[in-house]
Amino acid sequence: MSKKLTKRAEDYSKWYNELVVKADLAENSGVRGCMVIKPYGFAIWEKMQAALDKRFKETGHENAYFPLFIPKSYLSKEATHVEGFAKECAVVTHYRLKNAEDGSGIIVDPEAKLEEELIVRPTSETIIWDTYRRWIQSYRDLPLLINQWANVVRWELRTRLFLRTAEFLWQEGHTAHATEKEAIAEAEQMVDVYAEFAETHMAMPVIKGVKTASERFAGALETYCIEALMQDGKALQAGTSHFLGQNFAKAFDVKFANKEGKQEHVWATSWGVSTRLMGALIMTHSDDNGLVLPPMLAPIQVVIVPIYKGDDQLDAISEKVNPLVKELRAKGISVKYDNRDTHKPGFKFNEYELKGVPVRLAIGQRDLENGTYEVARRDTLTKETVNADEVVAKIEFLLEDIQKSIYKKAYDFRENNITEVNSYDEFKTVLETKPGFISAHWDGTEETEELIKEETKATIRCIPLEAKEEAGSCMVTGKPSAKRVLFAKAY
Amino acid sequence: MSKKLTKRAEDYSKWYNELVVKADLAENSGVRGCMVIKPYGFAIWEKMQAALDKRFKETGHENAYFPLFIPKSYLSKEATHVEGFAKECAVVTHYRLKNAEDGSGIIVDPEAKLEEELIVRPTSETIIWDTYRRWIQSYRDLPLLINQWANVVRWELRTRLFLRTAEFLWQEGHTAHATEKEAIAEAEQMVDVYAEFAETHMAMPVIKGVKTASERFAGALETYCIEALMQDGKALQAGTSHFLGQNFAKAFDVKFANKEGKQEHVWATSWGVSTRLMGALIMTHSDDNGLVLPPMLAPIQVVIVPIYKGDDQLDAISEKVNPLVKELRAKGISVKYDNRDTHKPGFKFNEYELKGVPVRLAIGQRDLENGTYEVARRDTLTKETVNADEVVAKIEFLLEDIQKSIYKKAYDFRENNITEVNSYDEFKTVLETKPGFISAHWDGTEETEELIKEETKATIRCIPLEAKEEAGSCMVTGKPSAKRVLFAKAY
Repeated sequence: MSKKLTKRAEDYSKWYNELVVKADLAENSGVRGCMVIKPYGFAIWEKMQAALDKRFKETGHENAYFPLFIPKSYLSKEATHVEGFAKECAVVTHYRLKNAEDGSGIIVDPEAKLEEELIVRPTSETIIWDTYRRWIQSYRDLPLLINQWANVVRWELRTRLFLRTAEFLWQEGHTAHATEKEAIAEAEQMVDVYAEFAETHMAMPVIKGVKTASERFAGALETYCIEALMQDGKALQAGTSHFLGQNFAKAFDVKFANKEGKQEHVWATSWGVSTRLMGALIMTHSDDNGLVLPPMLAPIQVVIVPIYKGDDQLDAISEKVNPLVKELRAKGISVKYDNRDTHKPGFKFNEYELKGVPVRLAIGQRDLENGTYEVARRDTLTKETVNADEVVAKIEFLLEDIQKSIYKKAYDFRENNITEVNSYDEFKTVLETKPGFISAHWDGTEETEELIKEETKATIRCIPLEAKEEAGSCMVTGKPSAKRVLFAKAY
Repeated sequence: MSKKLTKRAEDYSKWYNELVVKADLAENSGVRGCMVIKPYGFAIWEKMQAALDKRFKETGHENAYFPLFIPKSYLSKEATHVEGFAKECAVVTHYRLKNAEDGSGIIVDPEAKLEEELIVRPTSETIIWDTYRRWIQSYRDLPLLINQWANVVRWELRTRLFLRTAEFLWQEGHTAHATEKEAIAEAEQMVDVYAEFAETHMAMPVIKGVKTASERFAGALETYCIEALMQDGKALQAGTSHFLGQNFAKAFDVKFANKEGKQEHVWATSWGVSTRLMGALIMTHSDDNGLVLPPMLAPIQVVIVPIYKGDDQLDAISEKVNPLVKELRAKGISVKYDNRDTHKPGFKFNEYELKGVPVRLAIGQRDLENGTYEVARRDTLTKETVNADEVVAKIEFLLEDIQKSIYKKAYDFRENNITEVNSYDEFKTVLETKPGFISAHWDGTEETEELIKEETKATIRCIPLEAKEEAGSCMVTGKPSAKRVLFAKAY
């Protein structure tokens, strides 16, 4: 297997596709648009899950599980919602196969047709709100704060590993509240949780904002989002949190008795992040040699490679390395001592570089004699010689420093690639010459947004929550605008 | 909501159904045969998952994720396998809905028919072995030790919460080995892992055995299992581990070059446990007052209920309780201090009894004065007064003791309900009068097994691994038999 990667500058998209496969993260399966997440990729996803799950529980949410299937009639109950998902969904129509009578093989049994078709969930608002009707009677039952880890299916025509797949893994939070204010506060809290997770664990800077009406989730009154900037200057929506108003409560007739005993419809939110984050992680940090992983999400944080001739040398090295492995593990650091005799050190170096292991130690005969290790950091590809008695402290320092450094690098890149423009001509030029976020005035209409998208393929990624008020005029129509919004081409 | 349960002696099945719903474990959804797992039930499942996942990782397995969908042609490749699953599976035939032209609503778009139907996985051997063909070339790639946590669908006609549902959650291990011997050792290892988990965490004694040919997994050469005995004397298969021989390797053409460079087919195992374990847990320990949970799986291990009149008394109690809560949490004990003013202590006592919280503390004015707590254990429903300075030690003792006691109780029950019989008449009598396992000689033929099943509804649960050799003769045909096997009616 050739481990040689296409260079990013040559073909970013090809680089990405190759890296995902070569670093053993995921691959395409025999099922159109569905991926296999390989153990190394899944181990990263598990670390993301654990960190997110902890945050959800700390903010009072509990996990539950709802059915995979959604009766067609449920999906149809909220008009905007069905509009958004009906065009790309997997439909179960039968419940049995049988042997063809002409001996031609296994066929769908035409007599086993479902009375009502079932949709494989593209998202679970409808089945969940059908359930909440049974769970919510009184203000005492609120707020209801639930999260689900699940697989969902959206029949995308063009798929790419992690970024857009027919089936993907995600979590979806679904909460119910007594008041509009509380529901909005919840939606805002969860976009904050996502942003904090992205920045702390993924070392990925994000911009918090709200979507324009045309980019909102199907059924939402407001969609909060976090937007990240990939190395090629394209934006990636990394998580969304929706204020759903009373839309689903009304569609599924979910009411509660308030403290005065009066019946009111419940207020809702939903919020989710998915395996798409894996794509964002890769395109934020990695380089022409392979993955660069933040230590907090790396399945292997430190790898130790012995350089030796013959079993005696290996034994002498192992005698030094084994206690070190033990000491690091006791500190909660995940270490792999790769003493395989089937592969040469050079092969191993390449493999761990490709897989983004943050810190690599090598130890050979001369190190043994000098009481040293060669310590290499993945992000900068630099090496130094470290005394054995200082190596643990060095590793601890590096794991923290790499986490911070790659964040800073991504942050600086992002900041250097937000360009303010004041005319549509300038906008088009910047879009071609300096990809990234473009900050510009917009008149707030769907027509103008659509026109820009048609002409340039750039969309409004978000109206940043933290943007300052600034009177200006729309770069296309000249109409007044109170705030700049962020445009970009996007994944 | 009435919390009053049907008594077990009255109607065991009704007791079970009511308990699952009233204890907030799960409920039926609007989708036929699919359940909603409620937060309290899911929290127990999460604890089971964590304990199992740890064991899988300790035995060298890694998690991965494979597609939800299986092309019809894949399922058909292994003849016995398709035979086993084709009759009850959910089939996806279309990938789009649309608005009916006559305005009658949303319909399946007939133009969006899949070229090949997709089956929602009932188990993943086929899609996984189709993948393994790409992953395995050489003996260096073996063993391949992979596990997946996933949802699966089997279109059961008669469903019961946790015990038999159209969709359920499970883990499925799928391993590939260079030799038959290694694969058998893996299958045996995993049934041991399941048994150890069941006994340690679930406090549920199990019998390890192998299935008869007719009860084997579709595609297996040997099925190892753990069988547990429920309180009503019916057996429940709690986990299975299959030695699959080279069946799937041959069906999917998975070969490896051995050390001599010769191509050989790979040897396989698969093994799984599911949310069915929740049913087993409930029917092993619970009583007429509700759930009894082993402390190791209880979402709340200790609940503290204040008994007070007015805010001043509550404040005085809280002042004592808050440091205790802190101390217990620091020890990793999960505690809930239920100081809600919306419910009376008696209501709370019933609720936590119903939900099986192992240890309950109550503290009122007199306890405050005396420096005591009232400590109640759920398994025996006994209470005692404990000095505040001894209460932490008491709780630690109780959590261990309850775990052991309920195991012993279940073990004694099981041992008292294994009856040896030596004639078919005796067999039938015991089956009616003393339900449980019946240990009897059987001639090893499918005909006799089938006859017994037809006439008595009892099946051979397993040929116990630890049964002693004992020459005898089949209770039905009189033919020679070398070993007793275990019969029972089963879930």
